[in-house]
Amino acid sequence: MIERMSEEEAHTLLRAGRLARLGCVADGYPYVVPVNYVCDGESVISHSLPGRKVDAMRAFPYVCLQVDEVRDQTRWKSVLAFGTFEEIDKRDDRERAMNLLLSLFPHLTPVESLIAVDAGAPMPVVYRVRVERITGIRDG
Amino acid sequence: MIERMSEEEAHTLLRAGRLARLGCVADGYPYVVPVNYVCDGESVISHSLPGRKVDAMRAFPYVCLQVDEVRDQTRWKSVLAFGTFEEIDKRDDRERAMNLLLSLFPHLTPVESLIAVDAGAPMPVVYRVRVERITGIRDG
Repeated sequence: MIERMSEEEAHTLLRAGRLARLGCVADGYPYVVPVNYVCDGESVISHSLPGRKVDAMRAFPYVCLQVDEVRDQTRWKSVLAFGTFEEIDKRDDRERAMNLLLSLFPHLTPVESLIAVDAGAPMPVVYRVRVERITGIRDG
Repeated sequence: MIERMSEEEAHTLLRAGRLARLGCVADGYPYVVPVNYVCDGESVISHSLPGRKVDAMRAFPYVCLQVDEVRDQTRWKSVLAFGTFEEIDKRDDRERAMNLLLSLFPHLTPVESLIAVDAGAPMPVVYRVRVERITGIRDG
């Protein structure tokens, strides 16, 4: 029995999640990638190395994040949050966001450190997605 | 160490997978939903009740399927297959596709049966996505 979730229930799942599938539109075509994230109230914060995904979001900032909790084929929840990509580039905000991400995903540390000390390597892009609309469905 | 996968390795993961995140463009905006699927050689076969996703794919048939295998945060693979949505509506082809899906996802049976006997309920849409391009990356 598939049922619609309340907005509050959908937000709870988004806040608890750490792995989302981010959907964006790249040159007019759909593009989906898994991203680690943290939800700070009304926004999702994540980061990425420069590349196709970041280029796409800079060109067309309307994105969605799909997050699910699958226990088995008949017991699952899935939410879809729609929002706008915003790069976090002010130094203090960037540092705060990066620290929050690193505290949750400590395995990133060596990569980030490597990037920080190697001036030739590209700087990761830190961004937020302001969630403007959220829907969710669940089964079981 | 994140590396690009060969096309063959990416196809192997797509063929082995059963759960994808399907990305499409709905009224110009990205839309992502989890789907169960089976990969029959060069195509992905799936089904859906009528709704936003099907409307979107009928209007703009270029979609992508993201499939991953995550062991932990530092050991994962992810592929992205791009292709075109095609409805399977010829009776024999539809039945064959539906049987294949039901053999892999038997929990769907009661729902499908229910739909089949209740003339008032909407018929599920059976479709294939012809994979035209595939990329993949892996870590660890």
